[in-house]
Amino acid sequence: MTSYLHRVQYYETDAMGVVHHSNYIRWMEEVREVFLDEAGMPYAEMETSGLYSPVIAVSCRYRFPARFGDTVRIETALTEFGNVRFCYRYRMVDAASGKVLVTGESEHCFLNREGRPVSLKRKNPALYDKFAQLVEKEP
Amino acid sequence: MTSYLHRVQYYETDAMGVVHHSNYIRWMEEVREVFLDEAGMPYAEMETSGLYSPVIAVSCRYRFPARFGDTVRIETALTEFGNVRFCYRYRMVDAASGKVLVTGESEHCFLNREGRPVSLKRKNPALYDKFAQLVEKEP
Amino acid sequence: MTSYLHRVQYYETDAMGVVHHSNYIRWMEEVREVFLDEAGMPYAEMETSGLYSPVIAVSCRYRFPARFGDTVRIETALTEFGNVRFCYRYRMVDAASGKVLVTGESEHCFLNREGRPVSLKRKNPALYDKFAQLVEKEP
Amino acid sequence: MTSYLHRVQYYETDAMGVVHHSNYIRWMEEVREVFLDEAGMPYAEMETSGLYSPVIAVSCRYRFPARFGDTVRIETALTEFGNVRFCYRYRMVDAASGKVLVTGESEHCFLNREGRPVSLKRKNPALYDKFAQLVEKEP
Repeated sequence: MTSYLHRVQYYETDAMGVVHHSNYIRWMEEVREVFLDEAGMPYAEMETSGLYSPVIAVSCRYRFPARFGDTVRIETALTEFGNVRFCYRYRMVDAASGKVLVTGESEHCFLNREGRPVSLKRKNPALYDKFAQLVEKEP
Repeated sequence: MTSYLHRVQYYETDAMGVVHHSNYIRWMEEVREVFLDEAGMPYAEMETSGLYSPVIAVSCRYRFPARFGDTVRIETALTEFGNVRFCYRYRMVDAASGKVLVTGESEHCFLNREGRPVSLKRKNPALYDKFAQLVEKEP
Repeated sequence: MTSYLHRVQYYETDAMGVVHHSNYIRWMEEVREVFLDEAGMPYAEMETSGLYSPVIAVSCRYRFPARFGDTVRIETALTEFGNVRFCYRYRMVDAASGKVLVTGESEHCFLNREGRPVSLKRKNPALYDKFAQLVEKEP
Repeated sequence: MTSYLHRVQYYETDAMGVVHHSNYIRWMEEVREVFLDEAGMPYAEMETSGLYSPVIAVSCRYRFPARFGDTVRIETALTEFGNVRFCYRYRMVDAASGKVLVTGESEHCFLNREGRPVSLKRKNPALYDKFAQLVEKEP
């Protein structure tokens, strides 16, 4: 599991006085970057090498809102990894209280520069193996 | 069904040259506003009257990306409406080609100014009835 | 002068209950699109032809805030146009009351696909002439 | 001078492949938070005490773009502090190369919960003195 701390920014709040729900989707992206860094395959390098991994589905459940002044611990794990698609799950927790604020999942695929699906196993077997070893089944 | 046209803005795109996936979540919010306007109960007025309806869950499937220069037709319908929660579904279509780009769903509840759940039937029976009549079951 | 109506979105507000100040910078971009459309040279086409015009400076004065539920009339005019840089000014007005909310200016240049400065006069003299005729000096 | 490191997020980029210019305005806000923390008067606490400090003007010059994968060092200093308004200046530097990407300024005032101007000297003389001592004149 990868986790990192996100400090809530004022520009992330809305008139309800809490973080706008669309921003948690962006925080999922933030923690995926950290996950890929820790795995030694930063996303910026993947893109430079011609490998893109767009989000093809996302779901998110909002339990409690984060507010300006809060720090949120964002956790992720790779839950599935096949040759053409892979999935992460997420948990966002108020760092001070440990309260679970948000849970979610996302699904991704690999594309080349032209936007066509890529078989990672064929294009980059070493990267494929690395990813495959990082899968954590649901507890 | 409510539908409205959204012109893709440059600031909504990302380095992949397409609309960033988090923005479709924001477009869901845009079309909900239009839905509530058409139903004669603008959200700004609901909030002024002390009624809030946060998003408690969202899911989104990205089929094809929208790009800068595109106009997207965003459609929504209320699919469920109970006393404590209600759901919308969405379809986002490239206005020029009719291609379905994104589908999704969201779930909401009613809260008062203090953030506590509200029984709409008790608080505002007229609004409750109005909402209830707008439900469109899945085709 | 070009003007268009922007409806304030909930996701554009912040915890102060008003539009977050960064969004007015985005609205400047929105009205520039409309300006270029009306001039018959949509920005999407300019980019396809290999001509980019990034923002090189922006300034903005916030007089009164816009709120969710408001509609804002965003006005722009081209105030300077030289071979290497050009400027717009902006005025954002509450559509209901006519109150001036925000004023601002932006400065731009032309770049090619490689990010190098372009002499528009040489690259596209017809477009250069069109732009030059649209300049409105400060009143 | 206060400085902190911001990692460029993918959702901050646009179709030009660089950070969208509106985001630097948001980064100014991020570093102001850090400035206020270091000064021992976190903005969240100021708001809780009924003191708001909206942005009343901002200007920004974009010299070189930041890209996804970059880390940017954002520096700020308080340059003016009067009883009714105060100003910050900013410098954003590519952390790896030291190249200056963006410079800017912002102007702020103090408001109470009702949105009326506040004399900080009268409302909170201790905070006023603290702020006044933090002013760094332009070098």
